Order: sequence, then structure tokens, then C-alpha cells
Amino acid sequence: MFEAIELGQSLSKKEFKQAELQFRAELLQLQQQLVEKSIPVLILVAGVEGAGKGDVVDNLNKWFDSRGMMTHAFWDETDEQKERPEYWRYWMSLPSRGSISIMFGGWYWDPIYQHSMDRLDDAGLDEAAQRIKDLEDTLNQDGVLIIKLWFHLAKKTFRSRLKKDSEAAKHIKTDADDHHGGLEYAPFLAAAERMIRRTDTSAATWHLIESEDRWFRDMSVVEVIRHSFKQRLEEHRVADRRVADTNLMPETSPATVLDTLDMSLALTKSDYKEQLQHYQAKLSQLVWQAYDAKHSTVIVFEGWDAAGKGGAIRRLTDTIDARLYRSISVAAPTDEELAHHYLWRFWRQVPRAGYMTLYDRSWYGRVLVERVEDFAQPHEWMRAYQEINDFEEQLVDSGIVLLKFWLHISPEEQLRRFEERQQIPWKQHKLTDDDWRNRDKWDGYAQAVNEMVLRTSTGKAPWSLIPANDKLHARVEVLKTVCQRLEEVLKDN
Amino acid sequence: MFEAIELGQSLSKKEFKQAELQFRAELLQLQQQLVEKSIPVLILVAGVEGAGKGDVVDNLNKWFDSRGMMTHAFWDETDEQKERPEYWRYWMSLPSRGSISIMFGGWYWDPIYQHSMDRLDDAGLDEAAQRIKDLEDTLNQDGVLIIKLWFHLAKKTFRSRLKKDSEAAKHIKTDADDHHGGLEYAPFLAAAERMIRRTDTSAATWHLIESEDRWFRDMSVVEVIRHSFKQRLEEHRVADRRVADTNLMPETSPATVLDTLDMSLALTKSDYKEQLQHYQAKLSQLVWQAYDAKHSTVIVFEGWDAAGKGGAIRRLTDTIDARLYRSISVAAPTDEELAHHYLWRFWRQVPRAGYMTLYDRSWYGRVLVERVEDFAQPHEWMRAYQEINDFEEQLVDSGIVLLKFWLHISPEEQLRRFEERQQIPWKQHKLTDDDWRNRDKWDGYAQAVNEMVLRTSTGKAPWSLIPANDKLHARVEVLKTVCQRLEEVLKDN
Repeated sequence: MFEAIELGQSLSKKEFKQAELQFRAELLQLQQQLVEKSIPVLILVAGVEGAGKGDVVDNLNKWFDSRGMMTHAFWDETDEQKERPEYWRYWMSLPSRGSISIMFGGWYWDPIYQHSMDRLDDAGLDEAAQRIKDLEDTLNQDGVLIIKLWFHLAKKTFRSRLKKDSEAAKHIKTDADDHHGGLEYAPFLAAAERMIRRTDTSAATWHLIESEDRWFRDMSVVEVIRHSFKQRLEEHRVADRRVADTNLMPETSPATVLDTLDMSLALTKSDYKEQLQHYQAKLSQLVWQAYDAKHSTVIVFEGWDAAGKGGAIRRLTDTIDARLYRSISVAAPTDEELAHHYLWRFWRQVPRAGYMTLYDRSWYGRVLVERVEDFAQPHEWMRAYQEINDFEEQLVDSGIVLLKFWLHISPEEQLRRFEERQQIPWKQHKLTDDDWRNRDKWDGYAQAVNEMVLRTSTGKAPWSLIPANDKLHARVEVLKTVCQRLEEVLKDN
Repeated sequence: MFEAIELGQSLSKKEFKQAELQFRAELLQLQQQLVEKSIPVLILVAGVEGAGKGDVVDNLNKWFDSRGMMTHAFWDETDEQKERPEYWRYWMSLPSRGSISIMFGGWYWDPIYQHSMDRLDDAGLDEAAQRIKDLEDTLNQDGVLIIKLWFHLAKKTFRSRLKKDSEAAKHIKTDADDHHGGLEYAPFLAAAERMIRRTDTSAATWHLIESEDRWFRDMSVVEVIRHSFKQRLEEHRVADRRVADTNLMPETSPATVLDTLDMSLALTKSDYKEQLQHYQAKLSQLVWQAYDAKHSTVIVFEGWDAAGKGGAIRRLTDTIDARLYRSISVAAPTDEELAHHYLWRFWRQVPRAGYMTLYDRSWYGRVLVERVEDFAQPHEWMRAYQEINDFEEQLVDSGIVLLKFWLHISPEEQLRRFEERQQIPWKQHKLTDDDWRNRDKWDGYAQAVNEMVLRTSTGKAPWSLIPANDKLHARVEVLKTVCQRLEEVLKDN
């Protein structure tokens, strides 16, 4: 692959400077148009050491208006990063709409490096490539323009440059040896080739750039970027609105998974007290053990209005040391959040290792309220299933214990609770016109819930459907489920 | 002090539950009104171990609508926190307008704890108290309602509770021994008393709460909070708009510190090349040394439009490894930023230890453009001098190297450059109508700059005024100044 760009191409400084007079104004104009169209741009800068990636980034910072432009390197990990899923740092560095992020290496560096050091085999690299493709697809569909640049040097040049690159190399070896030390040319390129072949997609094309000559290299960068910007601005970009028309279940089927629940389950008050105490005592221990074992826990609560989410959450947090948990009621997104992929705000909240986060409503809003109320279009919520599964898989793979509860009540029980809320002064604020409106769309919601469970109840992140007509039963059931899961996970340690 | 609340006061559970029926609805209503008025609320929960601070926080989470409410504990520091000024973590946890932050201990815990362990003397505690008062004043003036609760236990009760509090204590000892271990009652209370006396101000009053009996304790909390909320909602709160009318210089004086600069300073092209190379080579080494020594550098660039800030910044970053710096062009704040004190966005960007941040415009906007254009009122920008000095002092005290450059050009030179910009295609975007308007207000800006230098050029954070009619001279002067400062700091290591 790479031999095709070992051509010894070059450009004179004079030619480059001449061209620069033209292209600088053009690049700025294009940037301005991208800002106006709120298009986020991600430029990934990768390649062999010594090819001048740093110089290229400096140039980009010079040519473009630096407002709304940010450069990210991922070499000197903090424990805030180490204690979260691998991709957390990348999500936190994504461009918002109308801005440009430049990433050194980005999600490519680590798998390529590990493979070239024989710490990752071919299958591992391919798996990493698949995950990258999924992410790039997601970003592309969300409107991000992804430009991937690979800077290449022939072996001879690489050798001679490496010697010169003394100062940085010295520090990098001392400070991040595990990440950059002992790189050999041939295995590195072999890993890179395999990775590039697997991730060169129409959603995010690779551009290989010969970097022997700096003027030729810089001119190539300009051309790639100019072309990519123009293409994106000129195309009448229509998001992929295709919707799989093969439902997992016939739409006409009136029954949903919710109909299978035994809604008669209930507890007497004395049974409740006893079991509540039992599981709460257990939980308060388990949470400290999870902290010690550095296992985070993420618990999602979804359910009908008035299904008792808040009460169930409180029966958990009552007993947990307040230093160890964070409880999040999902409200309207801020403008920083709106300027990113809808999952960004949830990535932002991923807990550090050892902590617990409880969600009163969650990222499932996309396939529930946003679907039923038409806030999201079908192609948007349809692809959300896949995106959510990917997100949750990464949480679980990083050691996070993920639990998802759907609290289910009957329409009759909901009505009873609404009417009760109207009577109790400190509950009146909980009942809004929206609640009554949502109630009218019960069937639509039921179908959405059914499909959500079908598509996102995975082996790694199953849904727990809790019959909640009896609050006491529901609360104990939730507590018990959390305790059981934590015990299982901690036993394996 | 504390003996005054060792009264053995108590309340029956029944009385409390009876009262709860009333106050819950009222608390929710008050919260709703605070949201409507965009008032941020900070509740500081402090006191002796075993007094039930965690239970109180759980109750607050139960009584209030948890949307827009966040609890923060500061016990398990990450290196992201350790590598920044002490107050960074508190700034990051402040409530935004209309929301409630609950802090465990907050800025009080550390100085009280250190003093009670004999690691901080009286003078040190008093200094910490002074800094706390400054911060609370700042927040109060910015509209934050601060409620400080101290939960007290008599010695006997403290002893008996400490034994029970086994699980948490065990973990806290292992995990954060330095922060919580070996606490003795008497020295702890002595430190607390000294701290409370010094920080019990009208901006942020302390409330001492007897905590022997849980129902009495909880009722006291409710009363304090209800009273504070009501008081704040009922008062026709007028910010302190007094403006010191004693200018440091007579306003009529037409001369400013800028007039003292030698604007004839210039470099020949060959001298420039030589010196640029010299200092750039030096800088690229120094930045790595600063990284190794964990010294961050923050460099602020202010100056007239077209004074050459961008060019000067680029002569610095050209030579610095792109992994080590971040360059920030200050643009319009996001809504998350607008919902906090104006310095919050800059706190947010404080670099980790060892890194460099360069600002193209900065927090000085408050006393420059916002003052001259009347975006901020006099009492707002007047108090900003003090706030900025406090902020910068904390940066410097935490080991950050802070440099502030004012690039100065004459009105004639500015006009020449504006006209030049109109000619060069890639510079046209830099020239806006605003630039021409600002030019008309030259004298107003000159006066604002003069006062800014007078009030914020401190021993710890002096301004460097750079004559910049000659770009070459200015760039070298900036480089030289940065090198010299870094050399001084690194020599001391």
C-alpha cells in the first residue's frame, strides 16, 4: 500500500508560498461557510514518527481562524481518563457543530501501536477497526465531516529523522514509555496498513500523504482539506433516511412484552419492611466493595409517568454513602450538549471507576418520547438502537456494571396515581399537562417500549422489566436486582 | 461557641412527620421561585463526623425536585484536580443560575482538618479564611445564595457515634488517609471555631445546628433553608452598586502608562531572524523542562485590534511540541458559561500541571471591552479588578507561571494595518465593522488599559507592555520575556 506513495514527490518553497497566497483566503472562506452551516469537522492526523505531524497541525492553526478550533493529543493520560471507557476521551474531544477538532492519532494510535508491539493480534486489531468504523459511521450520520490524514515516510527517511527528533523522543520515552517506546518501522507499517484497509470507508476516507518533502506534504494537506470542505459544502447532503422495514415483530400485533408481566405481584407492609432492610444493608456493603474493586455502576430508570422511578431511586440512595453516587434527572439539554451527538451528554457523565450513577430517565428518551412525539425522525431513532447498544457495550466492556429498569404500571393504576398527586400538595408539581397528553398516547408508547426492549435488551445489558402496580414490590425488586448483579460481578474478582 | 448549642434539644418523630406534611410543598414552591428568578443556591454541609451530614443530604435530595440539583464531595481527589489550583474543583462544582449545589465540606474541610492535625498554624488558617471570604463575597455579589450549615455533636455523642460508623470510616482511612485519618475532637472543634468566627459574614452566614437528635436536626435544617430562601426571594435585592470614586489617577489626566513606551523600538530583518531562532530554540527546551517540573504556563495576550497578537502567539507555538500547549481564542460564551460567574469559563480552562495555555484575549475583556462598550455596569467591572487579582494569585500560588502581554500600537499604525488588511484576501475576514467602531473609542480604551495596568499589574502577575509598532520587535520581545520568566522559575527548582 505505502509503496504507492514513495515517489519522491517534492515542491519548491517558492511554488508553495505562491500557492499559499491563493489558498489561505479560500480556506478561510470555506471555514466560514462550514460555520454558517453548523458543520462539525474532525481532522485526524496520523502517520509515522518524524513525518511532521506537529508542523502540519501548526499550519492548520495558522491558516484557519483559530476561534472554534481545538487540537487534542492523547498521550499523557490522566486517571480521570484511565478510569473511564477507552473512548471517553475521544467523545470529550469531538467537535461541536460549526467547529473544527484536530486529533493527533485519535482512536487509531493505540490499536496500531499495540499491534506493532505484538501486544494485540490480528483479530484484536480487526475488532478495534470494527469499533472505529461504528463510531465513524455514527459521527458521519450525525453530520460530522471526518478527514483522515496518514503521513508516510520511506524507511530510510524515517531512520534519519528519528535520530534528529531527540528532545521530544527523550521525554516521550520517559513519560509515556508504554505508549510510544521501542517502535519498529516494519511492524508499525504492517499494523497501520491492516488498520487503514479496514477503516477506509465512504463515511471516512483515508488520505495517504507522502511526507519526504515538507512543501509537497503541506500542499497535499491543503488539497485534501480544500477538496473535502468543498465537496461537503456542495453536496446536497441528505442523511441516510432509509428505515429498515423489517420489524422484528409484526406491527399489527397488539401484544407487547409488557403484557407478559405479572401485575398482581405485591408485598405486605411487613414483608416490605423486612426485605427492604435486608437488601439495603446488603447494598450499602456492596457499594463500598464495588468502590474498592473499582467497578462503577450505572443504573437507568425508565417507566411510565408516575410509575415510581423517584421512589425506587431513593430506596437505593438512602443507604449509599453520599460520596459514592450521583443521581441525574435528565432535563433539557444545554446548548453545548445540543451542539453534539445526542449521546455526548451521556458520555460526559460517565462515572469514574468505583462510583455509581443513577439516571431518572436516560439516553432511551431518543427511542421513547422523541420517537412517539416526533421530536426525532424515524431514521434518527431507528439508528439510535445500534448507537445505544454500542455505547452500552463500551460501558460494560470497561468494567461498568449496567442495569436498566423499566417500571411498568397499568393505565388504571396510572390514573389512580395522577388523581392522588392532585391531592397531595408536594406532589402537585409532578403532574403536568404533558403527563395527561402522554397518557393519551399509551399505545404508541407501549409499542415503542416493546421495540426498545427487543432491540436493546442484550446479553451484556439486559432490561429488567418490573411490575410496579405495587410500589412496595417494585422497590424491593429493584434493590434485589441491583444487589444480585453487584454480587455476581464482585464474586468474579 | 459550640456549648451554646449543646442543649439536648429534640423533637418527636411524630411532630416532625406532621410538620413534613406542610413544609414539603412549601420547599418545592420556594425552589420553583428560585428557578424562575434564576438564583443559584449553594448549600455547604459541614460539621463533626457522625452528626448525620449524609442523611441531611439525602433528605434534601428527597424534599427538593432533583432536576437542577447536584451534590459534590471532595474526598477522593483525581490527578486532574491535584494538578490544578486548590479552588479549581470548587469552581467546577458551583451552581449555575437557577440550580442548587450541595457541597460536603467544600472549601472549609481542608484548612480545618489540616489545622486540627497541627499541619497548619493559626496564621495559615486565617489566611485560608480570608481567601474563603473573598470567594464567598465574589459569589454573593454575583447573586449566589450561600447557606452554610455546621452540624454539631457534644463530645460524648461524637465518641459513641464514631464507633458505629465503621464501614465508611474503614474505607475512608484506607483510601484517603491523608484527608480524614486520626481526627481528634478537641483540636478539630478549636480549628472549626476559629474558621467559623472568621467566615461568618453577612454575605454568607453560618448556621450551627445541634445534631444529637435527628428529628430536631432535620427540622432545624428545614427552618434555616426555608428562612434563607424566603428572605432572598422577598428582599428587593440590589447588588452593591457603589463604585469607589477615588481613582488611582485623576481622570482628567490625559497621559497613560502607554505613553511611556518607546514606540520607536524596531528590529532589522536579519537581527529578527537571528534572535527569533535563538529564543525559539531556547523556548522549545524550556517548555519540556517546565513539563518535567510540572509547571504550567498561562500566557495572556491583550492589545489593540491589529496589534499582532495572533502573530506573536504563533511565534511561540511554532516551536512548542503541539502536545504541550493549547491556544484559546476567546469567543462568545456558551449558555452554560453565561449561567455562571464570568470567571467560571476561565477556571474551566486552567491547564493541568506541565502544560501551556495561550489566550488570544482573556478575562480582561471584563475591564476592557465590556467596560468601554457598557456591556458591564460600573460596579461590575470595578469589582472585577479584585476578582481577577484573586484569580491570578491562585494560579500563581499553585505554581502556574503567568504572563500577561499588552501589545501596544499607535492609532496611525493601526490605521495602516487596517488598510493593509483590506488588501490581503486572507486577512479581510479579520477586519470587521466592530474594529472601526472600536477605533473611534480609542481614548476610552486607552483609559481602561491604563487603569487595568494600574490595578492588576501585581508583584505576582505583572503586565508586560510591549511596543508593537514594529512587529518584529514585538514578537522577539514576547519570546524573550517568556524565556526569561521560564528560566527564572525553573532555576528555582
